[in-house]
Amino acid sequence: MDQQIVVDLGSTKSQLTEAVANHPKRGRYVATHPMWGTEYSGPAAAVRGAYENKAVIICNEGESDLDALEWTKYMYKKIGMHLLSMEAKAHDLHAAYVSHISHITSFALANTVLEKEKEDNAIFEMASAGFESTVRLAKSNPAMWVPIFLQNKVNVLDVLNEHIEQLTKFRDSIRDDKGTDLQNLIEHANKIRRIIK
Amino acid sequence: MDQQIVVDLGSTKSQLTEAVANHPKRGRYVATHPMWGTEYSGPAAAVRGAYENKAVIICNEGESDLDALEWTKYMYKKIGMHLLSMEAKAHDLHAAYVSHISHITSFALANTVLEKEKEDNAIFEMASAGFESTVRLAKSNPAMWVPIFLQNKVNVLDVLNEHIEQLTKFRDSIRDDKGTDLQNLIEHANKIRRIIK
Repeated sequence: MDQQIVVDLGSTKSQLTEAVANHPKRGRYVATHPMWGTEYSGPAAAVRGAYENKAVIICNEGESDLDALEWTKYMYKKIGMHLLSMEAKAHDLHAAYVSHISHITSFALANTVLEKEKEDNAIFEMASAGFESTVRLAKSNPAMWVPIFLQNKVNVLDVLNEHIEQLTKFRDSIRDDKGTDLQNLIEHANKIRRIIK
Repeated sequence: MDQQIVVDLGSTKSQLTEAVANHPKRGRYVATHPMWGTEYSGPAAAVRGAYENKAVIICNEGESDLDALEWTKYMYKKIGMHLLSMEAKAHDLHAAYVSHISHITSFALANTVLEKEKEDNAIFEMASAGFESTVRLAKSNPAMWVPIFLQNKVNVLDVLNEHIEQLTKFRDSIRDDKGTDLQNLIEHANKIRRIIK
């Protein structure tokens, strides 16, 4: 039993690594987060080769036993992932920006459309690829996402408040017919090109 | 010259159809909106077969000459589109819900992440498919989108205010640790499944 390894694959890392920090067998626990998933849950949602060329974050490496760490890294490499090392706190901060906020905006967008658009048929017929891609994550499972948002509360609130602020800038520019401001906001957003292909 | 047809393919319909309503050659103008596009603009962004099995909205049919209308419908059917008929005002309302708001949330999400996340490398490495799909539209051209938002101002403001309201519900539930409320908000959002596959 001394050789047993517990590999955690969840989306938040701070709360759990703190909870086990003083456990006598802390070394057997390896905190990881493979950066892949879809809006579907459960075994039927598996996709062959899904993890190939994707990143996996390994957190607080120094707290795991060397053999447990090596075994875990070997396993992830075997399925084609590349490894990134990060402290749990840094992981949770970045995850809020690049994963958690996307899910909140998608859930909220779905609720907005369901609230405002009473003609299902019109959405169904008119919804284009753009709508589908921004709202796709809204099909994600609450059993997974409620704990993520609550466990990563501080970071999620920080980025969510900023997002409401950014949306308010768009709202005000449109309301006040400020074409130049709107142009500047969109040109700034276009800089995301330097990060995503 | 009497047989010339002007086919409009833009994303807003009310302002233009009102502007030409009393034009002596109004009948030669056909107001349409093919529901397909990507975040890229210009001839290099063309995609073969893009319009196949997509919807095209034809607005205020009764104001176009029958031959101009027939020619336009024939053209769209020829490239595989299915036709929908709608008044310009209804079009602009639905377009705000299923297209325009998705672009605003995507632009604002890009600005949020660019504002908060100073480590480009972390985003680049960690950004998963979910992030890419919600932020993809943020690469869209301001020359196209500034006029759309301003021309469809009333509907866009209406849906944008609702969206900020919906995000605020998420923000408050997370801030106040209201797990059940959060669960309900997400379960409601899941109903988007009945509309998108």
